[in-house]
Amino acid sequence: MPNGPDRTDAVNDSTHLAPIELRSDNAAGAAPEVLAAVAAANVGSALAYGDDAWTAALHDVVREVFEHPQARVFPVISGTAANSLGLAAMCPPWGAVLCHETAHIIQSECGATSMFGGGATMRGLAGDDFLVSEESLQGAFDATRWGDNHHSQPSVLSLTVPTDFGTVYTPAHVSSLAALAHERGLRVHVDGARIANAISALGCSPAELTWKAGVDAFSLGAMKNGSLSTDAIVCFDPAVAEQLHYRLKRAGHVASKMRFQSVQLSTYLHDGLWLRLAAVANTTMTRLASGLMDLGLVLVSRPAVNMVFVHVDDAVIERMERSGLLFYRMGPGLVRFVTSFQTTEAEVDDALGRIKQAIAD
Amino acid sequence: MPNGPDRTDAVNDSTHLAPIELRSDNAAGAAPEVLAAVAAANVGSALAYGDDAWTAALHDVVREVFEHPQARVFPVISGTAANSLGLAAMCPPWGAVLCHETAHIIQSECGATSMFGGGATMRGLAGDDFLVSEESLQGAFDATRWGDNHHSQPSVLSLTVPTDFGTVYTPAHVSSLAALAHERGLRVHVDGARIANAISALGCSPAELTWKAGVDAFSLGAMKNGSLSTDAIVCFDPAVAEQLHYRLKRAGHVASKMRFQSVQLSTYLHDGLWLRLAAVANTTMTRLASGLMDLGLVLVSRPAVNMVFVHVDDAVIERMERSGLLFYRMGPGLVRFVTSFQTTEAEVDDALGRIKQAIAD
Amino acid sequence: MPNGPDRTDAVNDSTHLAPIELRSDNAAGAAPEVLAAVAAANVGSALAYGDDAWTAALHDVVREVFEHPQARVFPVISGTAANSLGLAAMCPPWGAVLCHETAHIIQSECGATSMFGGGATMRGLAGDDFLVSEESLQGAFDATRWGDNHHSQPSVLSLTVPTDFGTVYTPAHVSSLAALAHERGLRVHVDGARIANAISALGCSPAELTWKAGVDAFSLGAMKNGSLSTDAIVCFDPAVAEQLHYRLKRAGHVASKMRFQSVQLSTYLHDGLWLRLAAVANTTMTRLASGLMDLGLVLVSRPAVNMVFVHVDDAVIERMERSGLLFYRMGPGLVRFVTSFQTTEAEVDDALGRIKQAIAD
Amino acid sequence: MPNGPDRTDAVNDSTHLAPIELRSDNAAGAAPEVLAAVAAANVGSALAYGDDAWTAALHDVVREVFEHPQARVFPVISGTAANSLGLAAMCPPWGAVLCHETAHIIQSECGATSMFGGGATMRGLAGDDFLVSEESLQGAFDATRWGDNHHSQPSVLSLTVPTDFGTVYTPAHVSSLAALAHERGLRVHVDGARIANAISALGCSPAELTWKAGVDAFSLGAMKNGSLSTDAIVCFDPAVAEQLHYRLKRAGHVASKMRFQSVQLSTYLHDGLWLRLAAVANTTMTRLASGLMDLGLVLVSRPAVNMVFVHVDDAVIERMERSGLLFYRMGPGLVRFVTSFQTTEAEVDDALGRIKQAIAD
Repeated sequence: MPNGPDRTDAVNDSTHLAPIELRSDNAAGAAPEVLAAVAAANVGSALAYGDDAWTAALHDVVREVFEHPQARVFPVISGTAANSLGLAAMCPPWGAVLCHETAHIIQSECGATSMFGGGATMRGLAGDDFLVSEESLQGAFDATRWGDNHHSQPSVLSLTVPTDFGTVYTPAHVSSLAALAHERGLRVHVDGARIANAISALGCSPAELTWKAGVDAFSLGAMKNGSLSTDAIVCFDPAVAEQLHYRLKRAGHVASKMRFQSVQLSTYLHDGLWLRLAAVANTTMTRLASGLMDLGLVLVSRPAVNMVFVHVDDAVIERMERSGLLFYRMGPGLVRFVTSFQTTEAEVDDALGRIKQAIAD
Repeated sequence: MPNGPDRTDAVNDSTHLAPIELRSDNAAGAAPEVLAAVAAANVGSALAYGDDAWTAALHDVVREVFEHPQARVFPVISGTAANSLGLAAMCPPWGAVLCHETAHIIQSECGATSMFGGGATMRGLAGDDFLVSEESLQGAFDATRWGDNHHSQPSVLSLTVPTDFGTVYTPAHVSSLAALAHERGLRVHVDGARIANAISALGCSPAELTWKAGVDAFSLGAMKNGSLSTDAIVCFDPAVAEQLHYRLKRAGHVASKMRFQSVQLSTYLHDGLWLRLAAVANTTMTRLASGLMDLGLVLVSRPAVNMVFVHVDDAVIERMERSGLLFYRMGPGLVRFVTSFQTTEAEVDDALGRIKQAIAD
Repeated sequence: MPNGPDRTDAVNDSTHLAPIELRSDNAAGAAPEVLAAVAAANVGSALAYGDDAWTAALHDVVREVFEHPQARVFPVISGTAANSLGLAAMCPPWGAVLCHETAHIIQSECGATSMFGGGATMRGLAGDDFLVSEESLQGAFDATRWGDNHHSQPSVLSLTVPTDFGTVYTPAHVSSLAALAHERGLRVHVDGARIANAISALGCSPAELTWKAGVDAFSLGAMKNGSLSTDAIVCFDPAVAEQLHYRLKRAGHVASKMRFQSVQLSTYLHDGLWLRLAAVANTTMTRLASGLMDLGLVLVSRPAVNMVFVHVDDAVIERMERSGLLFYRMGPGLVRFVTSFQTTEAEVDDALGRIKQAIAD
Repeated sequence: MPNGPDRTDAVNDSTHLAPIELRSDNAAGAAPEVLAAVAAANVGSALAYGDDAWTAALHDVVREVFEHPQARVFPVISGTAANSLGLAAMCPPWGAVLCHETAHIIQSECGATSMFGGGATMRGLAGDDFLVSEESLQGAFDATRWGDNHHSQPSVLSLTVPTDFGTVYTPAHVSSLAALAHERGLRVHVDGARIANAISALGCSPAELTWKAGVDAFSLGAMKNGSLSTDAIVCFDPAVAEQLHYRLKRAGHVASKMRFQSVQLSTYLHDGLWLRLAAVANTTMTRLASGLMDLGLVLVSRPAVNMVFVHVDDAVIERMERSGLLFYRMGPGLVRFVTSFQTTEAEVDDALGRIKQAIAD
């Protein structure tokens, strides 16, 4: 399977039907609650760079939601920033970050971690279902010449939860990998670009999938699930947090109008909004997947969260595109659909109708 | 004069009068027009990372406002990001950025340019009124061993317009310095953290203070003047723009919901909004400065834009603080006032009344 | 096959026979001619950092030996320095270096290229016999999203000639790969850690295996073949050379007593010394390999240069070690022998005798 | 006074008298003892990268000479490498290295420390006689916003002992500065490019000028005083040494034929050779300085080690150059003479005779 969607296929304006967005949850807008909170924060003046009441409140929310009294949160503008700055603070320049060979951090961030990490390297591990396995991690450790300065030393294990291919690590799986990693002195990081979808699907608590499973820091992944202009690093390790304090500023990732970033995140996390938003994406995907199977289409696997890969004849794909459906081609005969917190049941049913027609034509 | 305000003085809650914000334009909120535009852009879906209609429109606005058909604009989250990424794209790793010794880029960005620039260095130049002079620039060139690999090679001249101390370069001054710099093969950069205030005060066109004066790229400085969550690099040199395309992504400075960043900037620049906002800050400062002189206080110099430094007895300063005025102490007997697009004439008059009382007590 | 020898096996002092060095050509000393030239250069005074007559002479020698009037040579202290600084000068920070997945630059240099390259990344390609194939290179190009800033852009093709596993690229193979690479705008680099052995074995001219085949710059690889304290980058591309002028100095790789480095290299390259030294290593390896086959042992492949991998029972390996033979275990039942310019026919015959005995015991 | 000599003045071939080298101790060759030791080490084979008996012996010598049982030594190819890699291991990327504003590390290493240090910055301090004073150090601390992430945090104090202008820190001065630095959590580094000359002139022990005075790591400075191809970092702090283990390898500064580097340094340090060599440079300088004063010339100051700056009429300077004297012009009417371990009393007397004649003509 190729590494990502073919963006040149994405444009479609040769239809008279309204487009239905199934390309990416990244194409969704901001949650109304988030936008309203930003507007409400636009009162009076507030010191820049985080010395404001909204940012203080965000820390409280994070500590409550993640049940961790020392958790610290660092708003940043993008998932790439969250991942690469978080990893740079966890890995010495001569270290290696271990991750699945299909991970976003190794495939789609243009060397960001190596840049911020002063030349730290990435080592891709194999594993079924796009998941790092205990065997592949142990194999990487066994192949390492520990202490030999010819070799970048494994220093961080990074897991993508859920993966870019829609599969998920359970808390038990994260725990088991983290235990192996900690034994060898590695820190454990999670790229949580869609972690709300995973938590919602797994039905676990946010703490169970993160620090209780051994995660030292993770990217919160708010952008795809309703945030307007901010993602964040959440950090449970004070030594990493101390580095982030400086690393973010010199990377230009400390917003001067921080209140407008912080208030998005506290609204997002407060009272379960993030999990409700993710649940919409997950359940509309479940509805879509069932419908696709009813139409006789073959899924690569049952969707665990909000994305599905489906085998479809190329001629049908073309008719689907002409019908106004927006989705990505992953290669010949294979397409990807992604739902978001904005996807409605009506859209799903409409999409299934158009697909049925495309098959029939 | 110390490098910056003493932030520990900033808190003041021991008063019954409403606080009046004169600490920094960075403490202001977002312009209502900007916020409304963000809300209006929250419709439908749009591809991430800049492949959207709002970002395309922003390029058109920038080209029109700056009268330059090849101008490109790169939204980023902060002024530090705009400066350091812009400079890194203009300077080889073995190069030196020349700037005034009091410049924000050398004093207050925690080495960001050296980090993004792969070890590029900064060389501070002297100059009256916090401005680089032709003499100091020529002196730096004369002291340089050009081509000698023991020495970082001067590669960029960066001017802060206006300076952090409220003084301004005229278009003629920028032109004259840029001509010297270009002669020696340097590129010319402007840190425009408050460039709207300078353009408004000078009454020149945006083009006259930038590319027509020899500027190759500059930081737009929207954050202090009404932006919600974005600043930007504006670039007239295609070779620099090509680097920025990659450098921003790997620095995590390409927002996934780019439409929400782009629409802020196109609203900000459209139909002169940015200059009207800056004019409010400048004219309320003029009113404040006149009032301060009427009270018998001595200004370090007449404010050219929206900040003023004033000699005040320490006992008076303390009474001013107790009266609910928010401002920065710059050292014994010296305070700084800054107005913003949100400052009103009524606030100025109220502030002057409190200062008068503090002097009298 | 594991990535490298197990160094903990290397020590062997439990024998009464003289040790025979077959671990690595890196364990050899300096060629007597090189040492004598250094001693001869220790006369009078000479300006530091390359402004000396010996360094000027080295440039002449390089231009003559490689038949290229613009060739420039940069002495550095190690092969890692030659590779990583050469590659950093050929690759933008957002670029990727393509090489075989077993290449030394990706496996054994602790991220040096990513560090000097400002976060440039490495992409390992598959290929039989540890050689990059046209198919794997073309496949990497096909999988690349050219111009997409999410992805490190392929910028350099680096070939290890010969490979760390003793296989060799012919000039035709290098030409064919270089043509593909240049078509896509990549530069072509060779890690020539043992290039003298390859040139000697192939019987081609130094030019035919380098610039005539499309190589833009390469590491000379003098350390394993008789140099005392210097390796070098040889560069045919003036733009790369201009970068190296600065990059080497700021990496601390410009020797102050440059004359002593330069004279080693001019002696090494003059009048074919380097190729005669390499020929000794190659021919003693041929003698050794024949003898091993005569003893009934199975080689992984016939040695093209000066190293061979041989299947041997572990019990025999232990007896070989006890007999004073110095070699590396590559894993169970597999050993590596390497000859150097210092290896003698008598040593080979002695070694074969001990192996015969070890088999018999 | 300009930052360094004008190298274009250095060439002089219009004389029939033998040249006398007084430009730089960097122009001297290798000590015969060092060269002999290298030749003697060219026996048998030895594992690469420091797993050899000569390198083990070097550690013993360093620990004995510096009276410190945990001292570790890291041979590198140049003083720039020793300084910049040592400093990078002592300073976080967001840190600042404090040093005198005329220090070699800030003026003449092309940003090496910022590059290896991931964007660490340098802050130049004022001070008479090119020496950092307690007042200027304390002033820098007072001006620092500790913990504020807008500002590079002072992390290392680096002293040049002796300075590039021939002045020296006493052990008491180093101690006093180091105590101030340690109090604020900084590490203390010495650029010892000519430290042997300082130790010899001061008559103190190597320990007294280094770790007993609070120095955590320093550059040994062997290149100007008899080494052939190696300088070194000597490190008393195990945490810094652990970093150097990796940092040097990935910077390409671990020589494969390490035995030839190590043996130079152990010979250099053994039995006081380094101090005897330095004493020759110092005493010939004393003789030269006395003679210059006898000729009525005015010295900028009495030489503490092996260099002197002298006021001379430009017409006389030209005649001195024509007489075959090799020295540097520092500006109009000012020249620099430097002696080395190779300078003889006869050369000094010969030089003084030529200067006398140049004055007389």
